[in-house]
Amino acid sequence: MTKQYHDRALDADTLDQLFNEARSYNGWLDKPVNDEQLHAIWDLMKMAPTSANMQPARVVWVKSDEAKQQLAGLVSEGNKAKVVAAPVTAIIGYDIDFHEELPWLFPHTDAKSWFEGNEKLRQEGAFRNSSLQGAYLMLAARALGLDCGPMSGFDNAAVDKAFFADEPRHRSNFICSIGYGDPASIFDRSPRPDFDTFNRIA
Amino acid sequence: MTKQYHDRALDADTLDQLFNEARSYNGWLDKPVNDEQLHAIWDLMKMAPTSANMQPARVVWVKSDEAKQQLAGLVSEGNKAKVVAAPVTAIIGYDIDFHEELPWLFPHTDAKSWFEGNEKLRQEGAFRNSSLQGAYLMLAARALGLDCGPMSGFDNAAVDKAFFADEPRHRSNFICSIGYGDPASIFDRSPRPDFDTFNRIA
Repeated sequence: MTKQYHDRALDADTLDQLFNEARSYNGWLDKPVNDEQLHAIWDLMKMAPTSANMQPARVVWVKSDEAKQQLAGLVSEGNKAKVVAAPVTAIIGYDIDFHEELPWLFPHTDAKSWFEGNEKLRQEGAFRNSSLQGAYLMLAARALGLDCGPMSGFDNAAVDKAFFADEPRHRSNFICSIGYGDPASIFDRSPRPDFDTFNRIA
Repeated sequence: MTKQYHDRALDADTLDQLFNEARSYNGWLDKPVNDEQLHAIWDLMKMAPTSANMQPARVVWVKSDEAKQQLAGLVSEGNKAKVVAAPVTAIIGYDIDFHEELPWLFPHTDAKSWFEGNEKLRQEGAFRNSSLQGAYLMLAARALGLDCGPMSGFDNAAVDKAFFADEPRHRSNFICSIGYGDPASIFDRSPRPDFDTFNRIA
């Protein structure tokens, strides 16, 4: 029997850690992130839902100085210093042929056949669901006491060539630095829209 | 000064509520979700990061019997009963012209100009970031003691016509039922990939 948590709202401090006080960082404290922490992020994010459990995300965790320099050369000017300074930057990519894995990821039906011969449908599913997984990555990192700095300003094709050279099915979606954020590196909060601005109850 | 939570990992029960024990539900207990809960979900999800604070998601919360019947007529056969039974189903859409809102959402620079005349870039940004926001919505709902049932099996164009008729800039991304999940409605967990299967540390 699965555990349920009906009407158990998390306490204010936890909601602050995950949402209300968490910020996107542009600079990082000189404190490393170890491989066990990266495994722990994955072990949480993989539990969250994707369509037909497709799990299209393919992640390269850029951690060595050499890989950071390589990635920094492929991001926009304003992101270079961030990538070099961050303990780790995750390249969140996706497998355009994720359906090849569905026989073991979604074993109870022939979900692979839904996607065969339809790259447009696979592209849409892979992009949507790897984006979901990128969000799960960020919230998992925060849940473990780490900070994030997501970025989409980079040359996707060049990053694919540099980091997915052995995996021509893989394509980058966005990147996200992970570490212990430097509080001096954040800007004022941008405004947040009220419910009525962007929501409607029908 | 922003609050920080470095190395404060959430307790096991909270990680279970958010990730490890949370499940996607196919059926719902007969227990309503009220408007205050929907506002509370938005008030959390809007705090999480989007690129240049673009916040492209536009959400229709389908809650009335009439709206549920209308939506149920536009989803795949296997999803009809779920939509009718769920207390609420969120249509997570996006504004293809979100850049028109950037002057107030991202006021410190002229981010609107980055997207003007480039619908392809806007489509990519809106789809990626509204997907992130859909993931935030699900984790916010779970954080408040609610359950989720995300679905992508529906006719997007028909849903846009029915629910975004007054907003031709808005397009549906995916839908997600919200409520108190019926534990009898879930299937066995699909397998989750090990770190080494889909990750690499560079």
